Amino acid sequence: MNHRMIVAINCHILRIVALFMLPALGISLFQGEQSSVFGFLAAMALMFLPSITQLIPKWRPKRRNLNAKDGFVIVAITWVLVSALGALPFVFSGYIPNFIDAFFETVSGFTTTGASILRDVEALPMGLLYWRSFTHWLGGMGVLVFLLAIVPMGRDAGYSLYLLRAESPGPQVSKLVPRTKRTAMILYGIYIALTFLQIVLLLLAGLPLFDAITTAFGTAGTGGFSIHNDSLISLSPAVQIIVTVFMALFGVNFNVYYLLLMRSFTKKTFNEEFRAYWLILLVSSLVVALNILHLYDNFWVALRHAAFQVSSVMTTTGFATANFDLWPELSKTLLVLLMLVGASAGSTGGGVKVVRVLILLKYARNSIQKILHPRTVHVVHMDGGVIDRDTIRGVNVFIICYLFISVVSVLLISIDDFSFETTVTAMVACLNNIGPGLGQAGPIENFADFSWFSKLVLSADMLLGRLEIFPLIMACTPSFWRKAT
Amino acid sequence: MNHRMIVAINCHILRIVALFMLPALGISLFQGEQSSVFGFLAAMALMFLPSITQLIPKWRPKRRNLNAKDGFVIVAITWVLVSALGALPFVFSGYIPNFIDAFFETVSGFTTTGASILRDVEALPMGLLYWRSFTHWLGGMGVLVFLLAIVPMGRDAGYSLYLLRAESPGPQVSKLVPRTKRTAMILYGIYIALTFLQIVLLLLAGLPLFDAITTAFGTAGTGGFSIHNDSLISLSPAVQIIVTVFMALFGVNFNVYYLLLMRSFTKKTFNEEFRAYWLILLVSSLVVALNILHLYDNFWVALRHAAFQVSSVMTTTGFATANFDLWPELSKTLLVLLMLVGASAGSTGGGVKVVRVLILLKYARNSIQKILHPRTVHVVHMDGGVIDRDTIRGVNVFIICYLFISVVSVLLISIDDFSFETTVTAMVACLNNIGPGLGQAGPIENFADFSWFSKLVLSADMLLGRLEIFPLIMACTPSFWRKAT
Repeated sequence: MNHRMIVAINCHILRIVALFMLPALGISLFQGEQSSVFGFLAAMALMFLPSITQLIPKWRPKRRNLNAKDGFVIVAITWVLVSALGALPFVFSGYIPNFIDAFFETVSGFTTTGASILRDVEALPMGLLYWRSFTHWLGGMGVLVFLLAIVPMGRDAGYSLYLLRAESPGPQVSKLVPRTKRTAMILYGIYIALTFLQIVLLLLAGLPLFDAITTAFGTAGTGGFSIHNDSLISLSPAVQIIVTVFMALFGVNFNVYYLLLMRSFTKKTFNEEFRAYWLILLVSSLVVALNILHLYDNFWVALRHAAFQVSSVMTTTGFATANFDLWPELSKTLLVLLMLVGASAGSTGGGVKVVRVLILLKYARNSIQKILHPRTVHVVHMDGGVIDRDTIRGVNVFIICYLFISVVSVLLISIDDFSFETTVTAMVACLNNIGPGLGQAGPIENFADFSWFSKLVLSADMLLGRLEIFPLIMACTPSFWRKAT
Repeated sequence: MNHRMIVAINCHILRIVALFMLPALGISLFQGEQSSVFGFLAAMALMFLPSITQLIPKWRPKRRNLNAKDGFVIVAITWVLVSALGALPFVFSGYIPNFIDAFFETVSGFTTTGASILRDVEALPMGLLYWRSFTHWLGGMGVLVFLLAIVPMGRDAGYSLYLLRAESPGPQVSKLVPRTKRTAMILYGIYIALTFLQIVLLLLAGLPLFDAITTAFGTAGTGGFSIHNDSLISLSPAVQIIVTVFMALFGVNFNVYYLLLMRSFTKKTFNEEFRAYWLILLVSSLVVALNILHLYDNFWVALRHAAFQVSSVMTTTGFATANFDLWPELSKTLLVLLMLVGASAGSTGGGVKVVRVLILLKYARNSIQKILHPRTVHVVHMDGGVIDRDTIRGVNVFIICYLFISVVSVLLISIDDFSFETTVTAMVACLNNIGPGLGQAGPIENFADFSWFSKLVLSADMLLGRLEIFPLIMACTPSFWRKAT
């Protein structure tokens, strides 16, 4: 393991995140929010502190090469460290005095979960609100992907790809172009362009600039933090429709946008996952709309709310335009199931991902065929190609670990003695990075009443969900640290 | 496919089941229950009817050989047919006039689930109560296994093994002795001996004969139908302790008992699944006992109730000595998780089975090691041997199908608009053949209020659970029927 390189990259990340606090600091200064100004300055100082190690020449990395193992370690450490230090402005400013609460809120931000412990979001000053929403935007595409996009890399080979792979969601992460740095730049380019487009549309729909920016941050990262206590319930239908469309767009694999930019309108662009994703969104929206028809004035209002909530939970954003905890059980159950499915691989959304569900179902069908016709050759096809055994194995193991983590988490959270519905959906909402669940974890409720122990368990779930389990599990495996090379 | 042989075996099974109705008919005659007598006679007549086809020589099977495919078809048809015809005494006697309700109750009996639609069990006459409990006993070890044990088989090779495999639970079904018929006889021998022992002990504990027999049937098949409305709540502690022990014993792989009879006291007998099974039982009982301590007089009473309920749900029996729906969430959640794990392979219990959980966890650990150390060879070990790839594939596919069926079932049942807890645990309780869930499907509640549609979905879940998914899924696969050979 290349320890010095791991330290160097983490120092680099912390400096970047500290610089990203500048706009929030600026807003706090402009608003004359002294406690926030102090909070941000103190946090930034602590984030620059570790970089002192890089001034000592013999501590600097000699070799710049990293292997897969290093990639996992860096991702695991980075995300815990950035969340812990990113929580400090909330603590130092006194708005979330308890560190565990602030940590939960910041993990929820960076992992784009959107679960909040704040009973009154609107009491936060603008600088902190901005920072809170910005964590969604940065966490959505990834802190390390950002690093890859901006840092000049001498020897590109290998080193950076492992970081990209470890932080990006999906069972098969491929580079868009031969160079990793350029791939990271393209991803962030598309991300910034789409975010900007949404901000402009929200301004046109009559939203104030600050609201438009924070809402776009929450949408782009598929996060779900809102600056209002009632999420998007009191905003205009036009805003709700814009957010619906953009949530759905940010749940698409960014490779699709890249291929579209390259003027490729083939089946390769609109691949099986892409088609399945839109099909699930449309069918679910219709089913929910029909199921909640009696609660609303007419079909179109019902469809608007249905489409919003379906997009919100399937892309694991977590915004709400209606308190779906009051909807009929069929709609609630469908929403919980969509939470599990999640968005597309290579998007900013969380969950198991549509492509993994497709691979699992094809693999199962395939295996049943194999029992029936043992002498024929059976392989799993996807988009015209064959899915290799390692990918199938990876997806299977992902599901086993996912189930195991779910089971243990639910058991630990149940100590809090909330209802079965609350306990299960709180875990689902955190592990899949959605935000709101049902019951006391519902869309107009918050996570304030959970014990500090449950908050830590749920924080771990959010990190496991965002990093797709493996980096953190690897880092906790004894044999990972044995025989360190 | 050997169609004539399939018909012949099904006729045979129906005749056997009709003969098994004789004791219930006798009890009804003795009690002077005219409507029950009519019900049993009419059902028996209908069960003998198809056997007329066997009187026509050209309809009789020419070849007696069967393949794996035939085994699946026979098991699937047998179980649906036996449940449908076994329901008739309830319908004809007028005690459960609705056929779907009677079908649900009988499927619940044969699959050893124990979920009931009866609001007042005690209103049933003794003949019907006996038949209801007897379906548990017959379904526990299996209808076809019974056939194998008693029918003289000319050419044993292949033919019967496929039936044994298709009906017996577990990822790897092995014959105890070279001949299938003898294996089936040994299994039923142990089963009868243990049932008899339990009846004697229950009599010694002061239970009346009828109560002792029906309770033993419910325990042996890990079924859970009781002849009392409050299950075992009002019975004496001695009876409750005896039932606890026997539930746990019937959740053990019967191979263990055979090996013990052969005086083998090695690690091969007390294998990894056996040890994991008892460890889970003991640890869970202790955790629940400590969690419910404040509800009971002292630790021993709490432990008695904890051990009973833990054994009951883990072996998927479903008896209750306490309304665990009122227990703290930790205990309730743990019980639901134990429902999923289930008993041992090769026992009369249902669920995923301990050995499958072990294989999945070992496979996951193994695959993570493989990512870390790609150049080393990794295989999954169990009991000193290596688990082959086909078994691992089978377990993976089982879990995928299991999850898929769970998801679809929950969605369909949620149309009834019961609470999330009721909907989810009703599905879990039926798919894993336990019986009671939580909420309105709880231990002192019943399934009467579910719609006929949900009852059919839950009936399908019970059959899928008992037959471990594949036979029924196979029979519903289009390519299964194509290219019929």
